[in-house]
Parts: sequence; C-alpha cells; structure tokens
Amino acid sequence: MIRVGVIGASGYAGAELVRLLAGHPQVKLNALTCRQDAGQRFDQIYPAMTGWVDLVCEAYDARKLIRSVDLVFTALPHQLPMSLVPELLDQGLKVIDLSADFRFKDAAVYEAHYKPHSAAGLLPQAVYGLSEVYTEQIKSASLVGNPGCYPTSVLLPLVPLIKANLIDTRLLIADAKSGVSGAGRGASSTSHFCHVNESFKAYKVGSHRHTPEMEAVLSDVAGEPIALNFVPHLVPMTRGMQTTIYTQPRGGVTLRQIEECLQAFYAGRFFIRLRGATPPDALNVKGTNSCDIGYTLDARNNRLILMSAIDNLVKGAAGQAVQNMNIMLGMDESLGLQSCPFPI
Amino acid sequence: MIRVGVIGASGYAGAELVRLLAGHPQVKLNALTCRQDAGQRFDQIYPAMTGWVDLVCEAYDARKLIRSVDLVFTALPHQLPMSLVPELLDQGLKVIDLSADFRFKDAAVYEAHYKPHSAAGLLPQAVYGLSEVYTEQIKSASLVGNPGCYPTSVLLPLVPLIKANLIDTRLLIADAKSGVSGAGRGASSTSHFCHVNESFKAYKVGSHRHTPEMEAVLSDVAGEPIALNFVPHLVPMTRGMQTTIYTQPRGGVTLRQIEECLQAFYAGRFFIRLRGATPPDALNVKGTNSCDIGYTLDARNNRLILMSAIDNLVKGAAGQAVQNMNIMLGMDESLGLQSCPFPI
Amino acid sequence: MIRVGVIGASGYAGAELVRLLAGHPQVKLNALTCRQDAGQRFDQIYPAMTGWVDLVCEAYDARKLIRSVDLVFTALPHQLPMSLVPELLDQGLKVIDLSADFRFKDAAVYEAHYKPHSAAGLLPQAVYGLSEVYTEQIKSASLVGNPGCYPTSVLLPLVPLIKANLIDTRLLIADAKSGVSGAGRGASSTSHFCHVNESFKAYKVGSHRHTPEMEAVLSDVAGEPIALNFVPHLVPMTRGMQTTIYTQPRGGVTLRQIEECLQAFYAGRFFIRLRGATPPDALNVKGTNSCDIGYTLDARNNRLILMSAIDNLVKGAAGQAVQNMNIMLGMDESLGLQSCPFPI
Amino acid sequence: MIRVGVIGASGYAGAELVRLLAGHPQVKLNALTCRQDAGQRFDQIYPAMTGWVDLVCEAYDARKLIRSVDLVFTALPHQLPMSLVPELLDQGLKVIDLSADFRFKDAAVYEAHYKPHSAAGLLPQAVYGLSEVYTEQIKSASLVGNPGCYPTSVLLPLVPLIKANLIDTRLLIADAKSGVSGAGRGASSTSHFCHVNESFKAYKVGSHRHTPEMEAVLSDVAGEPIALNFVPHLVPMTRGMQTTIYTQPRGGVTLRQIEECLQAFYAGRFFIRLRGATPPDALNVKGTNSCDIGYTLDARNNRLILMSAIDNLVKGAAGQAVQNMNIMLGMDESLGLQSCPFPI
Repeated sequence: MIRVGVIGASGYAGAELVRLLAGHPQVKLNALTCRQDAGQRFDQIYPAMTGWVDLVCEAYDARKLIRSVDLVFTALPHQLPMSLVPELLDQGLKVIDLSADFRFKDAAVYEAHYKPHSAAGLLPQAVYGLSEVYTEQIKSASLVGNPGCYPTSVLLPLVPLIKANLIDTRLLIADAKSGVSGAGRGASSTSHFCHVNESFKAYKVGSHRHTPEMEAVLSDVAGEPIALNFVPHLVPMTRGMQTTIYTQPRGGVTLRQIEECLQAFYAGRFFIRLRGATPPDALNVKGTNSCDIGYTLDARNNRLILMSAIDNLVKGAAGQAVQNMNIMLGMDESLGLQSCPFPI
Repeated sequence: MIRVGVIGASGYAGAELVRLLAGHPQVKLNALTCRQDAGQRFDQIYPAMTGWVDLVCEAYDARKLIRSVDLVFTALPHQLPMSLVPELLDQGLKVIDLSADFRFKDAAVYEAHYKPHSAAGLLPQAVYGLSEVYTEQIKSASLVGNPGCYPTSVLLPLVPLIKANLIDTRLLIADAKSGVSGAGRGASSTSHFCHVNESFKAYKVGSHRHTPEMEAVLSDVAGEPIALNFVPHLVPMTRGMQTTIYTQPRGGVTLRQIEECLQAFYAGRFFIRLRGATPPDALNVKGTNSCDIGYTLDARNNRLILMSAIDNLVKGAAGQAVQNMNIMLGMDESLGLQSCPFPI
Repeated sequence: MIRVGVIGASGYAGAELVRLLAGHPQVKLNALTCRQDAGQRFDQIYPAMTGWVDLVCEAYDARKLIRSVDLVFTALPHQLPMSLVPELLDQGLKVIDLSADFRFKDAAVYEAHYKPHSAAGLLPQAVYGLSEVYTEQIKSASLVGNPGCYPTSVLLPLVPLIKANLIDTRLLIADAKSGVSGAGRGASSTSHFCHVNESFKAYKVGSHRHTPEMEAVLSDVAGEPIALNFVPHLVPMTRGMQTTIYTQPRGGVTLRQIEECLQAFYAGRFFIRLRGATPPDALNVKGTNSCDIGYTLDARNNRLILMSAIDNLVKGAAGQAVQNMNIMLGMDESLGLQSCPFPI
Repeated sequence: MIRVGVIGASGYAGAELVRLLAGHPQVKLNALTCRQDAGQRFDQIYPAMTGWVDLVCEAYDARKLIRSVDLVFTALPHQLPMSLVPELLDQGLKVIDLSADFRFKDAAVYEAHYKPHSAAGLLPQAVYGLSEVYTEQIKSASLVGNPGCYPTSVLLPLVPLIKANLIDTRLLIADAKSGVSGAGRGASSTSHFCHVNESFKAYKVGSHRHTPEMEAVLSDVAGEPIALNFVPHLVPMTRGMQTTIYTQPRGGVTLRQIEECLQAFYAGRFFIRLRGATPPDALNVKGTNSCDIGYTLDARNNRLILMSAIDNLVKGAAGQAVQNMNIMLGMDESLGLQSCPFPI
C-alpha cells in the first residue's frame, strides 16, 4: 500500500481526488490538508462522503506530512505549490501537482501568463502529466505537472496527428465547452445558479491561460512553434467538457489514415475510446476517466473536425492525476479508476 | 461467483443494475435481455458503458437463461414479470423483481390498483425487499418483490417509529419529490426537456399506485390499517428523491426518543445515515445506495417532520435490488455498492 | 403618468421591478438607486436590458428622490427600509416596501423574528399587500408592506377557505418549493450552481421567517391564533414556486363547496387561475403575475390538498408590488402586467 | 388592425407566434390551426396561456381561413407549406413561412437537402426573411421564407463583413450551440430530459441542412461560392442559441474597421446589439428578438472571432417572423416585440 496525502482537499479537484483515492485498492489515504476549513472533518465539507471518508482536514504541516505519506497530490491555486513542493521532493516524496506551476518547461512562458516562479529550478525535472502521451517520462518522474482540463481535451485528439505529421498546423481552432465545476468551489457571480442556468456564453476569448499550455505541448510535439485559436465556453451543467477542433489534413491524407493513426497511438490505452463519426457526449464520460474522441471530414473544403469529451474533474484533473500516480508506481494505469460508468 | 442475468436491461432500472453488477466482485453477469433492443450490444444503447460491458441484449429465452444464471433480476413493466417468474422459480433460480408484481401480500390490493394477477399463488412466498426492514425474511427468500422508489423513501424513516409506537398514525402526510429518471426511458411529453426544465409540479395527487404499497407495509408494521396522504412531485433533475413527512409524536414522546429509536433500529446498517436536524439533500446520495434521514420537531404544535433522500435509481431500485441479492446469498449487504460518492 | 423610483434596483426583486415598470404604460421610471453598484448604468449590471433601460443606478439621496418621483418601491434587505420610509412618507410619497419591515401589524412579532424596529409607529397605517385579499385597504394606503413569496403562495389558496370557515385550521401544513432566485443575487455556497444543480433539499425546517408572517395573516382572517407547519425546499430552477398544502375540510364540507368558495372569492380577479384537480405547474406562471391554484380531496381520510404555483419574483415580489401600485392609484390592477406568458 | 392566422400553432414556433401575436397592438389573431390537436383549445395545449388566448385550434380549412385573415404564418414541418401556400397567395393573403420550403432561390439546392419541391414556381418571388439584411425586399414581399435559427445566428454577424469585403471567405467556421426547444415539441430520445441534462454534444457534424441555407445567402452576398464549416451542438437549456465564428480579416483590416462596418450596417436597427469584446450570452436575449454580437481579434495569427446570441424561438423563428410582418405592412419593425427583457 502506498501512503498518500492530498494538499488542498476542500476544493473540487481535491475532493474528487479524495473520492478516487478512498476507493483505490493500493492506496492508504493518510492526510488531507485545507487552508480555510482546517480542523473540519472532510465529510462535513462534503456530506456525501459520510461513512466513506472519516479524515479531518488539517492545516498544512510539512514535517507531519513527510512522516505519514510517500506521495502527495497538491490541489492548490497557482503560486502556492511552488513554495511547498521543493521541500517535499527533498524529503523524498513524489509529487503530483494539479496547478499550473509545474506544467511548463520554460519559466518565462509561465511567468508571462501567471506570476513570477520561485521554483523554476524544478521545471526541467517536472514531467507534463498527459498520461497517454508522456507515459514513459511519467514512469520515472518524481514531480508531475498535471495538465489543465482544457489542454487535456484539446491535446488528446491532436497530439497523435501532429506527431504523425498528418495535419496542417497552421489551422488549429479549438472551441471548448466546460461545465461549471471548472470554475471551482468559490462562490462568485460567475457560478451563481441564476447566471449560469439557461445561459451559454464564451469567456476569456483568445486570452485563456490554458492556451500557452496547449501551444507549448503542441510545439514540442510538432518541433515548430504552433499558435492555436482557443475559445472556452460555459455550459449549464456541473461536470463535463466537450471540445470541437477544426483543422485540415495535409494534402492527400484521408480520414482512414487519421483514424488509423489514432488507433495505433492509443492501442491498449483503456481510457481512450475512439468513436468514429459519432460525436462524443459529455454525458457518456461523466464520473469517469475516459476521453471519447470523434472525427469527421468535411470533404467539401477538406476540413477535419475532431471532437473530444471528458469529465473535467476526472480526466481533466483528479482522475488523470491518479492515473499518473499509477504509472509512476508501476501499477496498472486504470487501478482505482474502474468504477463502471453511469448509464445516465 | 454467482451467475446473474438482467431481464429488461435497456430501461433505466435495468441499466443501473448492469452498472452495479458489472462492478460486483462476486457476480458474473451472464445474460441481458431486452424486448425492443434485442440483438443490440448493450453499449450501443448506453454508450457510456463502452469498454466496461460487452454483452449483447438478447431476446428473452427461458431455457437459455436457466442454463446460464443462478439468479435473475426482472426489470420489466408491471404485468410482464408475473408471466415469467413462475417458470424461473420452478427451475431453481432466485428472482428479484423490480416491478410491482410481487410487492403485495394481498392480490386483491394489487388488482385494485394494477390489473389481474396471473401468479397470485406466489405472493405468500414473495418477500418485500425493503432491505433494512425485512432482512431476515430476505435471507431465506427465493422471490423478492423489490420496493418502489417512493415507498423506500417514505418507509425507511417511518417504519421504526411506527414499530416502536412512537407516532400517531392518524396523521401521516408524505410530500415526495422525484428526479425525471423515475418516469423511465420512454420518450413522452412528460419527460421532454422543455416541459420539465424550469418546471415544478405535483402529479397523481392522492392517486399514485405507490400509495397502497406504502399503506400495506405500514399497516403490517402497525398492526392496524393506516391511510397515508401521499403527493409526488417532479423535480428538474435526472436522479434523486427527497421526501418530507409530516406526522406527530404520541403524547410525551420527545425528539430524543425519536432519534434513539432510529439509531437503534438502523445500528450497523451501512446505507442508513441519520442526519439529525440537517435536511438530507438528494445531491449527497446521488449514485449511491444510501438513504439519508433527518428529523425536526415543530414544538409549537408538536409536529414531527421527517425527511429522507435517496437516489431513486439506486436505493430506490437497482441498488436495493443488489443489496437484497447480497442478503439472499449471505454476503455483506454492501458488496458491490461501495463506490465512494461524488463530492458534487 | 406617475413618476416612480426603485430603491435597491440591483437585487433580483429590484431588477424585476425595473423590467415591469419599464414597460408600464402609465409609469415614468425616473430614479434607480443601488448601494453597491452606485454610478453604474443599470444595463451594465443587467446587460439583458441594453436598449430598454438607460438609467444610471445612483446612490440614495432622499431630497433628489422626493423631487423626482411620486411613488417609490423599496427593494432592500430587511432593516434598511425602516430608516428611509418615514421621511419619504412625510414628504408625500407613496411607498411600497418589498422587505419584511412593514408586513406585521405587531412590532413584537417582527422583532421576535427579525431585529428591533425603529419605525414601529408606522405599522398601524401600513397595509399588507396581498392584492386580492386586502384590495380595499390597499386602495387608500400610502404605505404597503408587500408580502413575501412563500406567504403569497400559501395565503392565496387558504385565505378564502378560512374566511368561509370551510377548513379545520388545526391541521395546516405547507410544503413549499422555490427556485434559486429566491435566495437573492448575492454569491454564496447556497446559490453555487454545483450545489443546487441535481440537488433537492429542505432548509430552515420549521424556522423560516415567513412562518410568522403567514400565521399573522391567517390568524387575522380566522379570528383566532393559527399555527402552521411550514417547510421550504430549494428547486434547481431559476424562477418559480410551488406549494402543496395539506388540511382538512370541516365536517360535511365537500370539494364542490371548496371550489365554489374559491370561485366566488376570486371572481373577476385576472391573476388567479383556478385549475381544479390539475396540479399547477411553476412553468405555466413563469414570468407572469398569475397564481394558479389546484385542489383535490383525498376522500379516504378526508384530507384536502391545495396546490399553488407562482413566479417568486413576480407574483411573489415585483409583480404583486406593481399590482398594488395599480390598485393604490385607482388603475386596472393588471396594467403593465399583461405580457402574454411563454408557452415554454 | 390586421387579421392574422397561424397554421401549425401547436408546435413550439407556432406557440411562440401565438404569444407574440396575442400581444401585438395592431394584430387581431383570428385563426389557429393544428393537425394533431385540432378541436382543442389552445390553452389546453399550453396552459400557461389560460386567460390570454381563448382560441380553439381548428383543422386546416383554406376557405374559412381566407375569409378570416389577411396574413398567415405557416409553422409546419418542411414539405407541408408548399402544398398550402400557392392557394393562399392566389387568394391575396400574405404568407410568412417558417419552414425551409421558401428559403432557397434555387429549387435544386432545396431538393438536394430536403425533398422534391412542388411549388418551385414561387421561389423567385419568395424573399428570404433575414429582417436586417433583406429589409427592402421584405417590404414589398407577399411571401417570405423565414430563416432558420442557425442561419440567423451565423448570418447576422457575417453578412456585413462579407458585403464590405473585409474578411477572407476561405476560412469560415461556425460552431453553434442551441437550446433543446430547437428540436421541437415532439417527444424523442433526443429531447428526453435525462439524455439532455448534464450532456453536451455535437450533432449532424458537417451535414446539418441549415448549412446550404447559410451558404446560399453568403454566396449571394459575396458574389462567389462560399463553403462554410458548420457544427451544431445541443445545450441543456430550453431556449437560446450561441454561435462562435472563426474567420480572418483580409490583409490590413483592423478590428476597428470590423466594428465600424457592423455599426454602420446595423445603425438604427433596434434588435442588433453590438457588444464589442464582451461575449454575448444567450441568457441576455432570452425571450426577446435581440441578436447580440461580439467580436475579438486573436492578433497572434490574425483570426477574427465573431460571436452571436439569439433566442432560437424568437429572433431564430417566431420573433423574426413578426418583425417581417411589421416590415411587410409598413409598421415599425419592433411593434409587438417590445416587452422588456428579463434580468435573469
């Protein structure tokens, strides 16, 4: 059994980690920490958990943590993990960070879109935790920067095709739609039921901080700089993310080749479900770590339309983090992520 | 491993059974049958299941079924199970029926609210599957009539108090609210998104067929005829059921006694969570087999307000059915029902 | 044209007043005041209004207000109106207050459930603005205490029957369900989309401050003290309120008499729609000032089930306030409230 | 007063027409016809309308209709209007058809995507009812083919820019999202609450029949053939449509020029609200005939992102039809469409 802690357990991603880890057959969940709710039982914050999780959310105490766990998940706002992670790594813990702090190879890019980075020295050893793409690197990582939800939904369909040089990277448009839980647990006018319900709108058009994260990975894969157009939208649902991507195949590339490329790349990967021309539905991945991918060619002007669906809190956050833990520890990547999906 | 089949797997209760049984550690799910979708893979009807369930929905064939399973769940519309169950029992199968066909001891009551009963001879041996109440009888049952969702939500808070003679049974009012999945998978104006969304209304006021089912159990428990007022309402949500019950304690009975009675009755029962004065929330039991129960006394006129929350498809249908299977087979009642709940 | 102002225009009830007054053929909307958003254009707070309302939300300035309007609606949190209203009345303005400050005849009752009252001297002249019940008093009122949403939904079905002595007031149970807008515009965990969506729960069981308001009116009408059991619930929808009331007819009173009593009481009142045994649906009154009322007798134990549906922001707040203004000014009560309802 | 009839009043677009026409100051609504519900009162089909509309839905009878109305709206499934409209025009009625039957100039295009056209002779005189674009032609039209909801949302932002030759028409991608009412009143698994709620997916990717309709108009405006990529998605909300369009400005064209072009084109048009960089929200146009338009330039790769929001049943169907009637009759285009929007 691996001894695990969750730093920042009271946010949505943290709570989803708790849900998954509480049911993981090889995990002993030993420590939860929260900032605002320290001292409270976790099941008072999330009463759904009563009877399943009896831990108390404690204030962060590095020494105590180091004694009681082998691996930690940090589910904190950006900027906080960078101040905690160096000490934890020094003491031999493995760390999976769900913030943006360790997602970038280039500190300058991080700093251009977030704030100054106080632990940039760790970036070279941090591995970007897109589980199906960087599997080998994750196996030997001590520090994983877990991907954002939007990047996961955009990169999983695109990376294999760009790696195989099948699409023209000058046209890459990602129109993404997220459930409200992506905005976090904090109460704000953005998350007020009456402002979200019966509403649909774009936000942060062309300026969302997940854009440089996607571009860094795509550029890495392509071997040349890539500029993506990315527009996120807010959907009146709790969980789920659907993304429609518009691009074009390189000259002569057929839909069959596109499909075969995806099939080959994702062969044996349990969580990737290729759906052919059937549009993926966020409902079908709710509560699961699956990513459904669909693809259609609009032959009239040779545009390739890729679509993906994930649960933003699972494959887009906590689930992929657990998958990364499994990979880091040499276990089956689907361990603890095998609950049968809900039919509706 | 017990070999299990689901008759009527394509409806919501059937699909929820498939979800739970696919993850049950002691179950080998061997057969699914459907009427309308026979010949289709189950994961074509419910694409969420792709990768988890690879069975085909077959047409019903008693002989084939009898060879391949030890226990069946029948999740069919009322009137259909009564024509299938006698043969299955004769052949030594255990049967858990989710329709109303085997819920009543008295065929006349069934026939007054449903239609003529062609297998009334089985009613004496059928056990009403309210798991926490009829546990002993379920242990030795071959045929279980699984409770309706509304009766489950109403009976669990009331039965212990009536058994202990703590409340005045002349005043029993149950105001219940159900998510839309309770109306089933069939498309109708009732289930049309635009008629349910932003809507709230009562239906079948004073005439719902679950009323005689509740009254039969309550009368059995009380040892005298009980007439309940029951009004169901439809809530714009997929799953979940909340019921508020209004009654009055007998002279001198305190809220403390009410609570102690419930605590004693449900001691050691994993799925019953007593919440004190905190109102149970359908959100906190979503996807789980739990029943949350709350209780408050309005001292000004000595009215006891009981509240319960369940997931109508789980504790209100498929989950309780699996719990009953566990009990019938001498296993831990929570086996296969232990997935950690969702925080949101 | 009557010159009108809205004090507290940025909350939901205030904004709904703006919507209705902007379209009222006899109203000149001259002043909007807000506390937090002073200086902002109203259509920046509510962008839906762009092109319809071009007023700026100003800070409250009694002198300026008095010069520019003849009648004000105060849509402020409890305790604030009592400090403003005396001066406004002194200067000859008519006031319709949407808070609880002027709903009670007895200051002691107000103070028992709210806070000390600094303008209790005005209570004798304040008229409770339940439009169809206190029509005559409203006609000559200068100060109206506009009813709460729950009281409106409970009182409209009950008052005629209690006045006519047709029901036994010892059993009065109101199980009410409200859309989320009833909780106001402020962001809180209560109104967070992810906590409300797919959720259903009771709150403030037996302790909601609308209970004494209802009891005061019912007792006034009955001529004897009445204690009601009232439990509010929260529904995942933006607008709407449905209430189911359980009571019993006095000996020998028939459902026909109940219906005739309601028909006679509400004859000629445009906004009351008697629905017979058809359960009223919140969807059918959305955006309108109507109150739909249904009634059924559960003959087995002689229980009368009354149901009502209103839009909590219209008949439950702003719409009834406009209706009261119409009555105070001797105009048709439906003026400015005649927009045809939405089919869905 | 103009005497008006609605053919096909029981569908959602028909019912929305009834709502608008019932409140139109210059309209006498004289006839409603339905196929399935003939003989029923309209307010039995849509109980929200009780007290506002007392007409009975009659079976279609051309003679009777011709005697009683001057103008008809046909809100029927495709293929039905073409069999009725010729006779109505012959008898001097004006016709606004909400189906696709009279939207195409070229019968071959219609027939390629729908079915054979039996009244193709009328196509030359039919005017495409995009109110702000074909205003002059609508003024003198006897037959208007009212635009589809998706085309309205796509064309309003694009037409001025293409007319002014400001954008490169080789890149035109429209990612559109619609509320469920767009699928109509018929019950189907598509519209089942449990399949739509908490779901988000694309459908008819690259094959929706609104694509040729948009392309025909865009090509007409551009003076050259245009092929658009169009992907519609389904949003769990009742009403509303949001579309995000990706294109690129021609060399040297600035965002300022884009904005000025839109401002000039839509100067004085009440229903077009230019929002600058603020993303339009479907919530802000709910129940209104407005079209909100936003625009942002992603300067990194010179992509122009246009966004629009409409209510699919109003500006996307019935509202625009009424606007067209106003224009045809020489009235103010906003007559009967002036109800103040809801704040939430």
